[in-house]
Amino acid sequence: MSDLRPTGTDLDPWLATYAERASGLAASEVRALFAVASRPEVVSLAGGMPYVTAIPRELVAGAIDRVLLTSAPQALQYGSGQGLPRLREQIVEVMAEEGITASPDDVVTTTGSQQAIDLVTKLFIDPGDVILAEGPSYVGALGVFKSYQARVVHLPMDADGLVPEVLEAAIHEQRAAGRTVKFLYTIPNFHNPAGITLSAERRPRVVEICRRLGVLIVEDNPYGLLWFDTPPPPPLHTLDPEGVVYLGSFSKTFAPGFRVGWAVAPHAIREKLVLAAESAILSPSSFNHLLISEYLETVDWRAQVGRFRDVYRERRDAMLAALGTHLPNLTWNEPNGGFYIWVGLPQELHSKQMLPRAVRELVAYTPGTGFYADGSGGREMRLSFCYPTPADILVGIQRLATVVNGELELVRAFAGTGSLAPRRDDRAVTSPPPDLR
Amino acid sequence: MSDLRPTGTDLDPWLATYAERASGLAASEVRALFAVASRPEVVSLAGGMPYVTAIPRELVAGAIDRVLLTSAPQALQYGSGQGLPRLREQIVEVMAEEGITASPDDVVTTTGSQQAIDLVTKLFIDPGDVILAEGPSYVGALGVFKSYQARVVHLPMDADGLVPEVLEAAIHEQRAAGRTVKFLYTIPNFHNPAGITLSAERRPRVVEICRRLGVLIVEDNPYGLLWFDTPPPPPLHTLDPEGVVYLGSFSKTFAPGFRVGWAVAPHAIREKLVLAAESAILSPSSFNHLLISEYLETVDWRAQVGRFRDVYRERRDAMLAALGTHLPNLTWNEPNGGFYIWVGLPQELHSKQMLPRAVRELVAYTPGTGFYADGSGGREMRLSFCYPTPADILVGIQRLATVVNGELELVRAFAGTGSLAPRRDDRAVTSPPPDLR
Repeated sequence: MSDLRPTGTDLDPWLATYAERASGLAASEVRALFAVASRPEVVSLAGGMPYVTAIPRELVAGAIDRVLLTSAPQALQYGSGQGLPRLREQIVEVMAEEGITASPDDVVTTTGSQQAIDLVTKLFIDPGDVILAEGPSYVGALGVFKSYQARVVHLPMDADGLVPEVLEAAIHEQRAAGRTVKFLYTIPNFHNPAGITLSAERRPRVVEICRRLGVLIVEDNPYGLLWFDTPPPPPLHTLDPEGVVYLGSFSKTFAPGFRVGWAVAPHAIREKLVLAAESAILSPSSFNHLLISEYLETVDWRAQVGRFRDVYRERRDAMLAALGTHLPNLTWNEPNGGFYIWVGLPQELHSKQMLPRAVRELVAYTPGTGFYADGSGGREMRLSFCYPTPADILVGIQRLATVVNGELELVRAFAGTGSLAPRRDDRAVTSPPPDLR
Repeated sequence: MSDLRPTGTDLDPWLATYAERASGLAASEVRALFAVASRPEVVSLAGGMPYVTAIPRELVAGAIDRVLLTSAPQALQYGSGQGLPRLREQIVEVMAEEGITASPDDVVTTTGSQQAIDLVTKLFIDPGDVILAEGPSYVGALGVFKSYQARVVHLPMDADGLVPEVLEAAIHEQRAAGRTVKFLYTIPNFHNPAGITLSAERRPRVVEICRRLGVLIVEDNPYGLLWFDTPPPPPLHTLDPEGVVYLGSFSKTFAPGFRVGWAVAPHAIREKLVLAAESAILSPSSFNHLLISEYLETVDWRAQVGRFRDVYRERRDAMLAALGTHLPNLTWNEPNGGFYIWVGLPQELHSKQMLPRAVRELVAYTPGTGFYADGSGGREMRLSFCYPTPADILVGIQRLATVVNGELELVRAFAGTGSLAPRRDDRAVTSPPPDLR
């Protein structure tokens, strides 16, 4: 049989046949780190894995037993593309905890909220369209945006989150350049990776600007219930339900292993999202929907969220204390919830270049470069306190201090300064890192 | 707060902001039918729901118990984007039943094989690119193709499936018209909806043409193990692993409620599929992967596939017998496996227009129009024998006969012919329907 595939290479005969958008598919840095983090001797401060061991196993087992007893044929079968109706009612109750009023009809379930980001982007983005996003922003969202050939414009934050004036100026600037601004993607609570929360005072201003200028808001809120001291201000959705697509998830308040998230959207958008979801996967896992529905129905899930809060608060405190003791030459913020602390490095260091040395010292983190569409962020890193125990967090930060100080020594020796002491002007323990001020 | 969203309507203020591809999102006819079919008094010959009640519940319960006992933290956590390694090894064993040789590295798992269709299309299709597909073809694939703005070119089948000469001519014709042919999407075994199997003699010819002309083959094979009398010929993948993306699924051989399918692809394509899958959903459901892995490990799954074969064979026989008795004025084929019989209607009838009357008579089917990108197929319909019992199949066909004969009477009376007798020249019980000859 002759082989005349004419356009490829030995490595990939199909190289010339991919869609244009396929050039945007590249392995994310988080992906490579998942492999590293899985080695048991490494303390991983890199991934965003929830501490699922905090869920008593019998709660899950009991819910599953009841599903199999009462609903096995339904659990094994195809289901509704929009998601199990009873679960959508319960999602409305979960969102009410944060002040959201919605109808189960407004809810479309997704395979984790990652799929909601994918579907919203598929629905709105033509190649070259602009998406506004905080800088830094969630690496998984940036990957989706790239895969649909969006142009991401980052909006720097300060300690109160998005800056309304910066947002408004960016919209005008993009439009003046002839570009179409399709939506603002924002994580207002316990931002991933920046740990920052958008202040109550700014929320109506952000919403007013987007509403006035006709820009849709995509509000991603996986961590909202996981506050430590005081609840965050109400979601943007409460201020303008017709202007916000709101994304939620059970991955952090229950468990990611079932892959159930959701979107709440204005009616016409929601209708299109259901069709897009059906096109992508026909229907979500009936078994997983029934299981989560049973869990919400019969388990005190609010108490479980409270246990998660206690676990993560203790770990945040452990990480802040360890940073203060062992890495006083770095800068960071103090998140009031969620999973992450965003750390600024001294001028001389580069988080991505330093990573191999860190892994050799058996500690992993996520370089800041993954969180910017343009690859900036080399002087920043994300530290996750969600998964390791407080004792392991201390060990991890001690190892990180060895790496940072060793790198500084090397860089400074190499630069001829020879100085080993941390620069005092880099110490700003409670304020956000340089790029976030 | 002023609202200057300038470009939409009262019904949808965001109307002008959707991506171009969003115009391809329309509710499929299958979708509307799912709602109809769920009413208990309706005998549904419409959906493709497997008869999951044929799985002994204790087999599933036992597998779940063992997963929770041995792997609860892993089951609740995020997993590998490519899929659980052990499950990918087992998928290779499942495919070996059909003669496929592959490495677990070549496998990427998906949220049902529907997601594999979506990811392959996202990876290869720029707007306007051509996808060749049988006419008729799977409605869920056509929806995906439309959502990426592909141009679908249907290839008519005869009783032996795709016609190699027609395939080759279509490729040349599309290229002569300046179009880019990206892939052939084909369902060689027990075709959905046509029930036809591509003959052994033609398989190497189809593969040779695609290889020679540099056209990728996407081989969708959810039903291959569900043969009734003799196994189908080996998959196209066995003839040219470097030229075929092969799609498989547990939805029909185990249960669709867990949403686990897979793709096997040449190395470079597989790498991109993994990235596309991670972008879409981060990782599949760990719980569902561990559960299916445990099921395959500890249950005699081949015996269960055998039970499914027996169930579906009996139902096919029931439907063929009922058609022969009650609808001799229609035409149909005799599938050797799978879920579907493809039925040709007399000239005067239109399957889509007749559907409301059928639902009034408490029987549902899928109009042929859903299975063509251009909306043709009005003289055809798909009957599913997978879900209803043999007794219900008989009732359903009897009701369908009432509808068909009533419609014919009406149409012919209206046309002034007054003839109530079926036209004898429409009787071709064992040959495929008109468009498939």
